[in-house]
Amino acid sequence: MNVELIIGLVAASLTTFGFLPQSIKAIRTKHTGDLSLITLIMLEVGIIIWIIYGYLKSDIPLLAANCISLVFMTFTLILKLRHG
Amino acid sequence: MNVELIIGLVAASLTTFGFLPQSIKAIRTKHTGDLSLITLIMLEVGIIIWIIYGYLKSDIPLLAANCISLVFMTFTLILKLRHG
Repeated sequence: MNVELIIGLVAASLTTFGFLPQSIKAIRTKHTGDLSLITLIMLEVGIIIWIIYGYLKSDIPLLAANCISLVFMTFTLILKLRHG
Repeated sequence: MNVELIIGLVAASLTTFGFLPQSIKAIRTKHTGDLSLITLIMLEVGIIIWIIYGYLKSDIPLLAANCISLVFMTFTLILKLRHG
């Protein structure tokens, strides 16, 4: 693997799994009041549109990364909608 | 402009500016306790590595989008570190 590919994979991993700790924190504390609902909706819709884009372009890494992101983002959004 | 390009630009806009409302909320309320510090650090480092990747690949859209994201993410992270 070349250096660029490794750097790209590290970046993708960090941003793809970035909302996992936020989901865990929200599950544990049941407090989501400080999270911006507008931010969560923008990111949720943005990720869904990235998935459509990845599908149209047949870009498997883009598709895969955003499908994983969507899981954690949806989870966080549901917790936000439930706990306010 | 073709449909794919428009879809890509909409997706990029939503995820690039996604943390703007979160920054504004954190500035207004001065409450960031429900935000996950690990999530913010992962996203901050991830965005910086995306910028390095974009630079190495001479990918201007990737570079530009992540430079904008970095502003809002850094702002949110500073507020989190200040307010806890």
